[in-house]
Order: sequence, then structure tokens, then C-alpha cells
Amino acid sequence: MEMEQRKTKAPYSLNSKKVADATKAWLQKRGIKIEEIAELVMLLQKKYYPNLTMEECIHNVEQVLSKREVQNAVLTGIQLDILAEQELLIPELQDMISNDEGLYGVDEILAFSIVNVYGSIGFTNYGYVDKLKPGVLEKLNDKTLGPCNTFLDDIVGAVAASASSRIAHRKQTEREQEQGEETLGKDIVR
Amino acid sequence: MEMEQRKTKAPYSLNSKKVADATKAWLQKRGIKIEEIAELVMLLQKKYYPNLTMEECIHNVEQVLSKREVQNAVLTGIQLDILAEQELLIPELQDMISNDEGLYGVDEILAFSIVNVYGSIGFTNYGYVDKLKPGVLEKLNDKTLGPCNTFLDDIVGAVAASASSRIAHRKQTEREQEQGEETLGKDIVR
Amino acid sequence: MEMEQRKTKAPYSLNSKKVADATKAWLQKRGIKIEEIAELVMLLQKKYYPNLTMEECIHNVEQVLSKREVQNAVLTGIQLDILAEQELLIPELQDMISNDEGLYGVDEILAFSIVNVYGSIGFTNYGYVDKLKPGVLEKLNDKTLGPCNTFLDDIVGAVAASASSRIAHRKQTEREQEQGEETLGKDIVR
Amino acid sequence: MEMEQRKTKAPYSLNSKKVADATKAWLQKRGIKIEEIAELVMLLQKKYYPNLTMEECIHNVEQVLSKREVQNAVLTGIQLDILAEQELLIPELQDMISNDEGLYGVDEILAFSIVNVYGSIGFTNYGYVDKLKPGVLEKLNDKTLGPCNTFLDDIVGAVAASASSRIAHRKQTEREQEQGEETLGKDIVR
Repeated sequence: MEMEQRKTKAPYSLNSKKVADATKAWLQKRGIKIEEIAELVMLLQKKYYPNLTMEECIHNVEQVLSKREVQNAVLTGIQLDILAEQELLIPELQDMISNDEGLYGVDEILAFSIVNVYGSIGFTNYGYVDKLKPGVLEKLNDKTLGPCNTFLDDIVGAVAASASSRIAHRKQTEREQEQGEETLGKDIVR
Repeated sequence: MEMEQRKTKAPYSLNSKKVADATKAWLQKRGIKIEEIAELVMLLQKKYYPNLTMEECIHNVEQVLSKREVQNAVLTGIQLDILAEQELLIPELQDMISNDEGLYGVDEILAFSIVNVYGSIGFTNYGYVDKLKPGVLEKLNDKTLGPCNTFLDDIVGAVAASASSRIAHRKQTEREQEQGEETLGKDIVR
Repeated sequence: MEMEQRKTKAPYSLNSKKVADATKAWLQKRGIKIEEIAELVMLLQKKYYPNLTMEECIHNVEQVLSKREVQNAVLTGIQLDILAEQELLIPELQDMISNDEGLYGVDEILAFSIVNVYGSIGFTNYGYVDKLKPGVLEKLNDKTLGPCNTFLDDIVGAVAASASSRIAHRKQTEREQEQGEETLGKDIVR
Repeated sequence: MEMEQRKTKAPYSLNSKKVADATKAWLQKRGIKIEEIAELVMLLQKKYYPNLTMEECIHNVEQVLSKREVQNAVLTGIQLDILAEQELLIPELQDMISNDEGLYGVDEILAFSIVNVYGSIGFTNYGYVDKLKPGVLEKLNDKTLGPCNTFLDDIVGAVAASASSRIAHRKQTEREQEQGEETLGKDIVR
């Protein structure tokens, strides 16, 4: 039906909900659970916020994944991984992507467009997890397994880094609100 | 033969010349002449350097295209355009790319990774040509023509902007060298 | 008092409201009215949204200015302009900033960090206004006037480009919500 | 004399050699030896290239520092550190920079503009050293010492990451050249 609609040239119109749903569905199909990304976030942030809960981490990952720019990068990266598996790419690109060529940096570029949404403070966290490959990233980076995850491991690291940035921004807001209320409790008018 | 080598798992090894050649070949196959990119460069730079020649513009475009990061972005972008034409993409991505959805920005992201190679002074030129669509960009952006050029028009604009940045950097070097010789002519040792 | 607190080493704690207020105050001190930025937004967007009002443009500029990353870039850029006026910079930097050297691109880099907050679709608009210098940007770019606005003109262009991106994203959401209601009115359950 | 020239409005003209010399001089004045940056490069790259020498690392750091975009970022970052020490900044900016506020990301933005010059493959290395703070970065990051190094530590990490990228690109070229000669030795014409 989808295909038929295209053939009869129904006028195109962006459907944000479908793009958002596809993003979640494709992460799952490629073997990534939201909880696994949340675990990376916990790893990155627990030393700064000892009371941080997994629920908060999951919530922040979901908020990151609700951003359009993030969805665009996730879908485009997974798409390139899939096409590399199917050997449908231009030979030179096929070689670089299916072998995760170190001098091919478009995966980092897409990852970077995800991190950017929550500002430059995420750069460091992204580079750190991308280098150390903790948790789910180790599995994704295992070249002996079947699927091509050249883009996916960078994307997952970038989503975790972005969720970490989001938490840092939110915790500051919470802290300032609490201080505001404290001040109010002391009957000092601002 | 290429395919057979892959089947028998000949060890992968990056072949830079093949990637460089594929970049030029694919630009040509998608209807882009180096001279057309050079014309964009001339348009952007002639008011700053009235003596700028087409030969110089062509040379600078070729130098930009010899950079690995540029080649990676060009090949990846053209690849996504081709796959969109072949309707081989994930439906949600297919819709956005084949309709050049304004809120899909991965084409700009790839373009940007090209511009970055010659530094931030290229941002402005890229945005300018991408908005005004002069010369070859008008043709590329004509949605009534067959092929999907969602990525290609941004890529061509970015290569032109990068070549413009390259010229700006080189002209400065030339100017300083001439001044050095002039000073030398005046018998002042530096 | 502020200074005294620092001397007695009162523990530092980020005060977001103060940073936000300083951002607005400094834009004003440097001669920029929110309305002038909003006019750039109107110029960029009216052809896409003929019903766009100045109130909406102003609102979107204010929302952009409420983002922490934007405030950091605005304050840092204005700071460097001011110090260049006061001739307090390292001589080589002083020369490049006070003469708006074309090969000095840190102003574009700061501008770019503003645009990034609303995603890559803003790159084009930024480049376009930065090249054409419409409205308030022409005034800012007039080198015969006293103040140094090497950073400020790029910053103002970037804020306008970001507000344009924000509008594009919001208008899409509005459109989809209306369609949803329409569909609902037709009694079709999704 | 420098100052007098400015007063009599000698026409401005960029002097690249002076900017390059100032970059080196200021790194040294801020306590950074080229060798210390080279040690970071060695740390990042020795596992990939066991024969890598300190001479090569130093050479690559020097090449990175010879790039104009890098010099612009280095000088601008060091300038902001110095002005923070002198307490000459706008109070809100003064507080954020002198306390290396985690939510102030302009230092990462400048660092990023350095890394970009050698392409996206440097993002990971930058994030990694910026997080782990090995070698000279630990010293720079010690807040109990006098000077403000909010920008400098990110800049040094970025220069090391860029030199690492440069090495990765060069080693590939060397490898391909050797293979070419080998092939030639076997009398096979390409």
C-alpha cells in the first residue's frame, strides 16, 4: 500500500510520528535496547550525580531520540549499515563501510550531528565512549559477528553522550530551582 | 573479479587511488563537470580577485576533490541519491530524501564536513550558493527532472565554497611572498 | 559586592538567570534590538509562511536567546569585540579582530555553534544573511563607524538563522496537529 | 613601535609569520612544550604504529600548529584564559571561564575547530584525552594551581588529536606508496 501510494504520486507530506516510530523500530531491529544506551549514560554520569536512576537515564535517552535531527542521523546511519550488509553500495564505499575503514569518517560526522543538538559539552563524552567501547558498544564493535555496525556504534555512543549532556543541563535547572525555593523559604524576596 | 575477491576474503586494504578515481567518475556520471563547479568558484571570488582565471578555479576544485574527507562525503551523498532513485531506502527515509524534505538536514551535514576541511571561512560561501542556487545548482535543484539530487546540490555547493576558501588562503600566501621579495629588493634583510 | 564575594572565595555556582539577563543586556548595549533580529527572520521566512507575524518572529528570537549555548557564544563574541575596541588583546589577535581579517574564522565558529542548536537546516540561512548583510547587518558591518563588530554581525546573523530553523520546525508540528484534528473530524481512528 | 604604527593608521595587512610565531610563543609562555603535546600523540598512536618515534610526533604537532585555523583558535583561547586571570571579563563570563563551568562549552567549540582541520576521525581522540586528562593535561587541569587554563587544556588535547589524525592519514599514504613500489618490483605495470 505504501508503495502503491507512491506510484500514484499522492502528494508528499512529512509525517513526524512515522519517522519517530521508524527510528525506535530500527534501533530495536538492529539489536539495540533503549536500556543499553541508558546504561552507557549511567556509566558516564553516575560519578557526577550519585542519585541518578536508570529511569532518569532511560527518560533522557527517549527525549534525545524524539529530536528530529537525531532521528535523521539514526535512520541514515542504520540505512548505510544495512546496505553495506546487502552489498548494494558503490564498490569503493562498500569496502570502506563494510570494513569500518579508520580513515572513513562519515560515521563520526553523523554521530557528531546528534551530539550537537545538546551542545558542545557532549563532544568529550562521545569521544570517550567511542574510544573505550564500554557495554553495548563492545558488542556492536565485534567485527566477527555478522552484521555491519560501522555507523550504529557511533550513533549509539552519540545518543548516550547527548543524553548525558541533557542530564547535565537539567540537573543545573533543578538545582537552581531548589535554591530559589530555599531562598523563598527564608523569606527573602528576589 | 572485485566481487570474487570479496567472497574469498582477500584481506581488505584501503586503496586511496581507487576512492579518488571513483569520486571523479561518480560526479561525472551524475552530470557534474569540474568546470561547472569552477564557475561557481569564479562567481564567488571574482570580486575579490579580478585577475582570477578559470584555470585557477579548476585547479582549486581539483585540489579540494583530492582530499579524503571530501571524497568520503561526495561518495556517500551520491550513494544516497542513487538509492533514493532506486527506491531502495527505508520508507521513511525514502520519502524524506526523494522529496528533499526541508527538515531533513543530513545533506547539509555532509556538505558541512566538506567545507570544514578548509576552515570556517567557507561557511558563508556555502550558505550563499546553497540559497541562491546559481549556475549548475539551479539545474541540480530542478525537481521536475528525473534524478534525485538531494545530496548532490549541497555537495557541489560545498566543494565550490571549499575551493573559494582555498583560493583565499593561497592568495594571502602569494601576497606575503611578493611583499617579502619586494622588501628583499629594497635590501632589507629579515 | 560581586567583586568582594570573589575575593572572599564564596563558592562559585552558576546562576543561569544572570547569564540570560546579561546576554540580553549586552546585545542592547551593543546597539542590537530584538526587533532588528526579528526583521531578519521575517526576511528569511516570509516567502515560506506568508502569514508569519512580527510577534512570532520576536518570540522565536527570544526563545533562541534563552538557550544556554547561544548565550555562551553571544557573550564570548561580544566580549572579544569589546576587548578589541579597548586594544587589550595580544597584538596579533588585536590586528586580526579589529580589522575583521577574512582569514580569521573564530567569529564564524561561534556563529556556527549558535546555528547548530537548531540543527543543520540553519547553515544555509546563516551563510545567506552573512553574505548579503541585509537590514541591521549592513549597519553592523560598516567599518567606518566606531565600534568593532567583528563577532557581533556573525552572531546576529546566526541568531536570526536559528530562529528561522525553529520556525520551520514549529510550523511543521502545527501543520501535523491540524491534519490530525482534521482526520479526527472525519471520524477516522488512527 | 607596534602601537605607534596603529596610531598612525598604517594600512592593516595580515602577517602570517607573526601570527605563527605568536602561537608558538604563547603556548610556551603558558607552560606548554611541543614535546608534551607530542607525548599525548605518542600515547594515542603507539598501539597502532609501534615504530612511531617522538621525532615524528613532534613533527606532526608542528605541522598542525602551522595551520592558520589552528593558530586562530589557539591564540583566541589563550587570550580568554589570560583575560580571565586578569579579571577583565564581563562578570557572568568571568565566573564561567575562571571556574571552568561545565555548561560553558566555548572551549570545546574552539577545540573542535582545531580537530576539524584534519577531519572527523579526530573527534574520538579529542574526546578521549579530554576525558582522561593524561600527561600534561592533568597538570593543566589542576585547579589549585594559579593560572586559568579553561581553554588551554582543550586546545592542547585538540592539537594532539589533530596530530594523531595527521599521522593516520600519512601512514596510509606511506603504506600505499610502499605497496606500489613492491608491485613495481614485481614488474606489474599499473
